[in-house]
Amino acid sequence: MSKVLVFGHKNPDTDTITSALVYAYLKKQLGIHAEAVRLGELNNETAYALEKFGFNAPRLVEKVAGEAAQVILVDHNERQQSADDIAEVQVTEVIDHHRIANFETADPLYYRAEPVGCTATILNKIFKENEVEIPANYAGLMLSAIISDTLLFKSPTCTEQDVKAANELAAIADVDAAEYGLAMLKAGADLSDKSLEDLLSLDAKEFSMGDHKVVIAQVNAVDVNDVLDRQADLEILLNNTVAEKGLDLFFFVVTDIINNDSVAVAIGAQAEKAYAAFNVVADNNRALLKGVVSRKKQIVPALTDALK
Amino acid sequence: MSKVLVFGHKNPDTDTITSALVYAYLKKQLGIHAEAVRLGELNNETAYALEKFGFNAPRLVEKVAGEAAQVILVDHNERQQSADDIAEVQVTEVIDHHRIANFETADPLYYRAEPVGCTATILNKIFKENEVEIPANYAGLMLSAIISDTLLFKSPTCTEQDVKAANELAAIADVDAAEYGLAMLKAGADLSDKSLEDLLSLDAKEFSMGDHKVVIAQVNAVDVNDVLDRQADLEILLNNTVAEKGLDLFFFVVTDIINNDSVAVAIGAQAEKAYAAFNVVADNNRALLKGVVSRKKQIVPALTDALK
Repeated sequence: MSKVLVFGHKNPDTDTITSALVYAYLKKQLGIHAEAVRLGELNNETAYALEKFGFNAPRLVEKVAGEAAQVILVDHNERQQSADDIAEVQVTEVIDHHRIANFETADPLYYRAEPVGCTATILNKIFKENEVEIPANYAGLMLSAIISDTLLFKSPTCTEQDVKAANELAAIADVDAAEYGLAMLKAGADLSDKSLEDLLSLDAKEFSMGDHKVVIAQVNAVDVNDVLDRQADLEILLNNTVAEKGLDLFFFVVTDIINNDSVAVAIGAQAEKAYAAFNVVADNNRALLKGVVSRKKQIVPALTDALK
Repeated sequence: MSKVLVFGHKNPDTDTITSALVYAYLKKQLGIHAEAVRLGELNNETAYALEKFGFNAPRLVEKVAGEAAQVILVDHNERQQSADDIAEVQVTEVIDHHRIANFETADPLYYRAEPVGCTATILNKIFKENEVEIPANYAGLMLSAIISDTLLFKSPTCTEQDVKAANELAAIADVDAAEYGLAMLKAGADLSDKSLEDLLSLDAKEFSMGDHKVVIAQVNAVDVNDVLDRQADLEILLNNTVAEKGLDLFFFVVTDIINNDSVAVAIGAQAEKAYAAFNVVADNNRALLKGVVSRKKQIVPALTDALK
């Protein structure tokens, strides 16, 4: 049987990595020769979660077409966030919880997107629909993904369905969600071993908005000043990236996971419009976005609307 | 509560009309103020099905933005097949079984596509997932949709899931699927009251393929000569449409619902490539496509590949 690769987005986060592992496991239980792979380096949070539940990282790949004719995307759909050669393979399935854009197929496919906080919440349903049991260690991965994506249920992206799924999964994994979750988030927010270059790419996603090319990068921090103390050097790097990639906007967001606010640094020709999208004015080239923690639900829609 | 409109594609067929009625019913049971509407005239087959199960046609609308801020698409996603002002409203859900193309949202949504023969087969699952019973008359509509889209289970688009759903729905509706189905298909294949203009638009869908603008129209017939006897006049109309709409290809298909073949008439600059996509050469400006009955699974992928 020919192999199908399962993978999430570039600059992978916990939901993307664990959903690839979990969905590949489910497909294998259903008789499909599936392999989870990843498109980039693990962040500290994901490494912590994999270690906790006894998993190795999925194999790193740069291209996919040489390995499989068919692929399954989890936690993303936009082609600029996917494998560079995604156009050369057939996407047979997508399991996602984001907007749909820059995605096109020639053939019908299985596409399951739901407006919930995390891919794992959808996967939890798909296990039930297929009447496959979730092993404790996989439930631990799925719980980690929900905690990560919802910032321990505090993000506005978090739905009742996410909380319900997390409770079910915590019981299967036999883990205290609050205690484990905070430890995992803190492991991810430990930026001490990260260079500024790392911070720019750790969780960066590219978007087309109107005619504009936009990158939004987000880092979680326990203390935003750990990052903002290096703002001058950060701006140089951001300006270089905007020039190199021909971006109209680089929107760099540091999210305070304790107080659930963010600070944004916008660079590029559309920077002023970007701040205006949140009704703020930059001071010292940055602005506090009160209550903003979600790229998907708060930042992308606001910027898409402002730049269209 | 603000209203959400539920509708299928332009030039509606039985699956599009009935899925709008059925899904609006389900949403209402779940407490959503949903109204099914349609974007075009009923065909004879759909009128037969609605009459049989005691339904009126959904209300005809030309634009949607004036009526609702949010809409649900069934049985389609490509914007050129949807309401003209679709860009002005928020698509909150899509239930579909086609390829995905020319579709984009700013926000996350519920998107449920499965590679099955009919939207009604997916709706049958969604009723179960929501633990809502399907009334007998709605089951009759859903059965009609599956029979229509699968040509009574003979199309290559038909999956085991479609057959299983149809059996369940026939039992609920208390209908003999084979007997009712043939009568319904024959009602739809009765083209005696249709002008050539009608035939061109009855089940026409527009597609972007590479840089090409393509229309594929399909009519079902018990005897293809009912249509092909008028080929000379048909070609004049096709040529006019190609010129008016700036098409690169108009692919007109008459499907023999008894023998499950089709005859194609291709007009436009890409006509030769279109025939070549099926390894046939036109004779008298038309070609027999042996065993071809499905636009979605056989015609669109072949033409997309040939014109990319």
